[in-house]
Amino acid sequence: MGHATELLRSYVSGEWRAAADEGAPLHDASTGEEVARISSAGIDFAAALRYGREVGGPALRRLTFHQRAALLKALASHLREHRDELYALSAKTGATLGDSKFDVDGGIGVLFAYGSKGKRELPNDTIYVDGAVEPLSKGGTFLAQHIATPLRGVAVQINAFNFPVWGPLEKFAPAFLAGVPSLVKPASQTAYLTARLVELIVESGILPEGSLQFVAGSAGDLLDHVTAQDLVSFTGSAATAQQLRAHPAIVRNSVRFNAEADSLNCSILGPDAVPATAEFDLFVKQLTTEMTVKAGQKCTAIRRAFVPAELIGDVAAAASERLAKVTVGAPDADGVRMGALASLEQREEVRRSLKALLAAGSVVFGDPEHVDVVGADAERGAFLSPVLLRADPERPEPHEVEAFGPVSTLLPYTSAAQVVELAARGGGSLVGSVVSADPDFVREVVLGVAPFHGRLLVLDAADAEESTGHGSPMPQLVHGGPGRAGGGEELGGIRGVLHHMQRTAVQGSPAALSGITGRWVPGAPRREAEVHPFRKSLAQLEIGDTVVAGPRAVTRADIDHFAEFTGDTFYAHTDPEAAAANPLFGGIVAHGYLVVSFAAGLFVSPEPGPVLANYGLENLRFLTPVQADDELTVTLTAKQITPRVDQDYGEVRWDADVTNQNGESVAKYDVLTLVAKEDR
Amino acid sequence: MGHATELLRSYVSGEWRAAADEGAPLHDASTGEEVARISSAGIDFAAALRYGREVGGPALRRLTFHQRAALLKALASHLREHRDELYALSAKTGATLGDSKFDVDGGIGVLFAYGSKGKRELPNDTIYVDGAVEPLSKGGTFLAQHIATPLRGVAVQINAFNFPVWGPLEKFAPAFLAGVPSLVKPASQTAYLTARLVELIVESGILPEGSLQFVAGSAGDLLDHVTAQDLVSFTGSAATAQQLRAHPAIVRNSVRFNAEADSLNCSILGPDAVPATAEFDLFVKQLTTEMTVKAGQKCTAIRRAFVPAELIGDVAAAASERLAKVTVGAPDADGVRMGALASLEQREEVRRSLKALLAAGSVVFGDPEHVDVVGADAERGAFLSPVLLRADPERPEPHEVEAFGPVSTLLPYTSAAQVVELAARGGGSLVGSVVSADPDFVREVVLGVAPFHGRLLVLDAADAEESTGHGSPMPQLVHGGPGRAGGGEELGGIRGVLHHMQRTAVQGSPAALSGITGRWVPGAPRREAEVHPFRKSLAQLEIGDTVVAGPRAVTRADIDHFAEFTGDTFYAHTDPEAAAANPLFGGIVAHGYLVVSFAAGLFVSPEPGPVLANYGLENLRFLTPVQADDELTVTLTAKQITPRVDQDYGEVRWDADVTNQNGESVAKYDVLTLVAKEDR
Repeated sequence: MGHATELLRSYVSGEWRAAADEGAPLHDASTGEEVARISSAGIDFAAALRYGREVGGPALRRLTFHQRAALLKALASHLREHRDELYALSAKTGATLGDSKFDVDGGIGVLFAYGSKGKRELPNDTIYVDGAVEPLSKGGTFLAQHIATPLRGVAVQINAFNFPVWGPLEKFAPAFLAGVPSLVKPASQTAYLTARLVELIVESGILPEGSLQFVAGSAGDLLDHVTAQDLVSFTGSAATAQQLRAHPAIVRNSVRFNAEADSLNCSILGPDAVPATAEFDLFVKQLTTEMTVKAGQKCTAIRRAFVPAELIGDVAAAASERLAKVTVGAPDADGVRMGALASLEQREEVRRSLKALLAAGSVVFGDPEHVDVVGADAERGAFLSPVLLRADPERPEPHEVEAFGPVSTLLPYTSAAQVVELAARGGGSLVGSVVSADPDFVREVVLGVAPFHGRLLVLDAADAEESTGHGSPMPQLVHGGPGRAGGGEELGGIRGVLHHMQRTAVQGSPAALSGITGRWVPGAPRREAEVHPFRKSLAQLEIGDTVVAGPRAVTRADIDHFAEFTGDTFYAHTDPEAAAANPLFGGIVAHGYLVVSFAAGLFVSPEPGPVLANYGLENLRFLTPVQADDELTVTLTAKQITPRVDQDYGEVRWDADVTNQNGESVAKYDVLTLVAKEDR
Repeated sequence: MGHATELLRSYVSGEWRAAADEGAPLHDASTGEEVARISSAGIDFAAALRYGREVGGPALRRLTFHQRAALLKALASHLREHRDELYALSAKTGATLGDSKFDVDGGIGVLFAYGSKGKRELPNDTIYVDGAVEPLSKGGTFLAQHIATPLRGVAVQINAFNFPVWGPLEKFAPAFLAGVPSLVKPASQTAYLTARLVELIVESGILPEGSLQFVAGSAGDLLDHVTAQDLVSFTGSAATAQQLRAHPAIVRNSVRFNAEADSLNCSILGPDAVPATAEFDLFVKQLTTEMTVKAGQKCTAIRRAFVPAELIGDVAAAASERLAKVTVGAPDADGVRMGALASLEQREEVRRSLKALLAAGSVVFGDPEHVDVVGADAERGAFLSPVLLRADPERPEPHEVEAFGPVSTLLPYTSAAQVVELAARGGGSLVGSVVSADPDFVREVVLGVAPFHGRLLVLDAADAEESTGHGSPMPQLVHGGPGRAGGGEELGGIRGVLHHMQRTAVQGSPAALSGITGRWVPGAPRREAEVHPFRKSLAQLEIGDTVVAGPRAVTRADIDHFAEFTGDTFYAHTDPEAAAANPLFGGIVAHGYLVVSFAAGLFVSPEPGPVLANYGLENLRFLTPVQADDELTVTLTAKQITPRVDQDYGEVRWDADVTNQNGESVAKYDVLTLVAKEDR
């Protein structure tokens, strides 16, 4: 019964648990040697989901977005210290060091990005306020605010074999930031790398207990137990995505289901990009890079390369020249640029797809059945030559058959309108790229193909040096595409966080909404105290604290003087006749900048105190013209208080309403200040 | 073969088409008389979808959001003129005049709301720019912008019988505004009213051809033909929602599917709301109103009324007293407060559900088998008494069985935590309400149940007079809920528009992104011409037009003077010692308001010209302190140009960047101006 390799354990219900049987072997992609064994037999999935809901969820929801963001950053730093260990395991999947960095560093980068976005773009709070207050009544006693709260279930994340580190982390980070625990189930083939990743995470002790669980092996009856508050996200083949989408429990409970499936992504060369232009070279280089990175096993790789018909021979020649220089072999062997596919089964699958594609065209470069290999046994490792095809774009195969390996197809086109139509035949893609320096061509193609894509890259000489390339999803940007690509959306910065939360429209009085959201809403009670609110530290200040100051008259002399002093001699402030002819003013008006400057002079509390600075202004609107001798009053109300986790101060947003002697608002805006947490 | 009533026709592929057979009869809900006949036999659904995609879509996409919004407004006005005709037909569905207004005026209100939102919140453009520019590189040559473009398919809208006017219009308006054509398929039972609505729309000639199609009768093989660019939205029973969600074509093509299903909505009375409080009365009144409006056939009606255990007798008595005053009968008969259910079949269905509910409790008011009827024959019309139950909240039935009629169940609870848990047992609802004046109770309950709800109403004395009530979805607010409620989301203002569009992350250089979005992006080329851009009309101005003005020194005397003139004597501007102690400044700094005022003095072009006014400022951030003798330069660049459809001017948004002598940005903001379309 003894085996040379370890049986991967699952981390569920707060413990590492071994399967009830001895598991199936997993093999090194290059050598064929057994790396580990895997099985989930005997794992109680219903209990794991319950544990996530009952232990992980409450622990996460006790933290604010900023606290969760700080944990993601700490986790990223921790994993960065263990990168080398992950690279070494990654090599067993057939990945070169470059490939491994793409996966490992990419995954750590997602954690850093969400750590940073969470701090900058989310409140230091447990609920998210979505969009503006919606007035619902004339009298202002009834309005609404959309809020987002974390779903009370578990984010079940089923990942593909090709990114055993990035895949789990790109799904985990937004869920964690949202306050939703994750249950990660990677594809078995490369699960030993994910298992080690999870071990590193668990050992770090950084995350609250229950916020991350891990299943090694098959999903068993896991999905039978999902409820309306759980989520299921899947990355992998379109066929499996369809099966999961129609799973009875998912359908019955309207479970949020997100799929990200391999798609027939295109790259389009512009007709301006003739040989010897920067864009021609960029196109060829990107095409061959996308074919060989991860041995083409990227759901974002270029499968269809559209080239102006007259340039196709030049592109074929240039790409072949580059591909001829790609050394294939053991990931750690000298000079190797492309490693093995993940398994022999994967290679067979790619060869089958290649046969189907050849019904529509012919091989330009490479031999599907043979490749010279460095530092490894070509029989035992899953090696394959890069294969570039050329095909008839009117045939269905290039738009429907995906060879998930180092394979791409050149397709000729003759006009922008035609290539837009051809690109759409892919039926929906994760990503496309347009390589051209012609702005009209770029605009027509990008807007033409946008409805079929989750991401589009415009590559030209201007961005080439800094571009992250066609194949790289970015945490800031949505990842996913319509139709064949699964119809889902992941990442996209805070969008990916909100996918894990329920949006709810809350209707009520201003006071009720303020009480629920913790933000002062216009119409809610104001508290005018003896103490000026600028004299209160963050600890003392409460939303609704208000200062009313004024009135102060604005004289014609003030307007004249301000014009002269600032140089803003716009006719509406200086020339009575011309001002009278202005359709909006009908006479001399005070400068808007004068109004807000006077308002600041009214509401200021000059002596040193907790208010450190006015660092900005938002949503300023001048609503009623101010004429000479109008009298201004300003009402300033604390609207939102955000202590910073890592500073001894925080932000206070104030509602400013400047009114005239008739009670009309002449200007409304938000004043942004930094305020010390404690009295200084 | 002759029939007394009309065979409803479908409006597809640009024509009114009659079915190939004689159809099935539809009956007046109160009298049982035949109203019309219905069938979709012989309608070519594949052709209708093609027509929508090939004729309707392109016609809509040629219009800007503002042009589409104007058409919605015109359509709303047109329909408002024909309200009486729609009310009259609506009476045949069993609806009282009040019920009919809820449906008809509600639907017209959605059109007005989208007309207004489209103009105010969307650009006068054909694409939507979603979120901020995302920087992706240190050098600033590579960044991204999310955009949304209309899907290229048809929005298939399958509606329920209970809102034959509001239902189609609430789905149509956001689709139309997005630029996506609709195909409306109402439930047969009340389709004669929708048919007349569509006739009125078609006759008006307001909408572009192909933007609205209508199917009378069954959906036949319609869904077999949907593609990845089409959408399917469904309102109706949870069972049908499940069937449609798992439809092979929807699953295979990852079709966007939105369901809005009947749910077991709750209303929760707070323990503070004892008899004789305003909230007690509001709760009882709302409960009985929701039971009787549309004879309780509202997917938003209150099915579960949670009441503090000690108050349940009082609530039962007060509600019974109100229900006893509800006269049931023919919608047009004198004094009738509640009409008929939509059909005898519906009544049977409700009686069956009532039986199931009675396993968990007993009747408080009403007789499921008998009701006194005014002005109609109780045998032939689908009349039913309002029935109020009281049940054990620990039993499953009240949380699972929906009687879709004038039926509600009182359920006792003992603590806020318990009622949150009980409310969640509904498995996801469209709407809930909390009736209480206790802010702590309200906050705990609202945040506790929010993940299970699409909308929550807080009802109290403060908003009661203006509140639109528990049962009314609002176009500004999301409509839909998780789990049992279908897991979908409709309306929600612009959110509902974006549901019909594909979000795409576009990556490229600043110039490339500017070319695609039509908005100047920082880093894109600026054009400094001899002519000051403020001297250009909207017709002449182009994004990227720039004026660079300055430098101007800020002297200590300027700062002193500004402090004295405005009264803003904050110590950082006036007290060298105290300013030096400020952790952010380290010495005297100029007022932010002084900086922006001087900047305006630099970039202004004083003489009368096309620029009419500076109406606001956005996203102002003070980035670097300005000290005495710093020299300021301002660079102002036209960023976005939005002509108004209905005015001779439009909006221009300018990017303002104020820099010091070291080239550091000291302030960045957007200046908002109104500019004439033509030279004046």
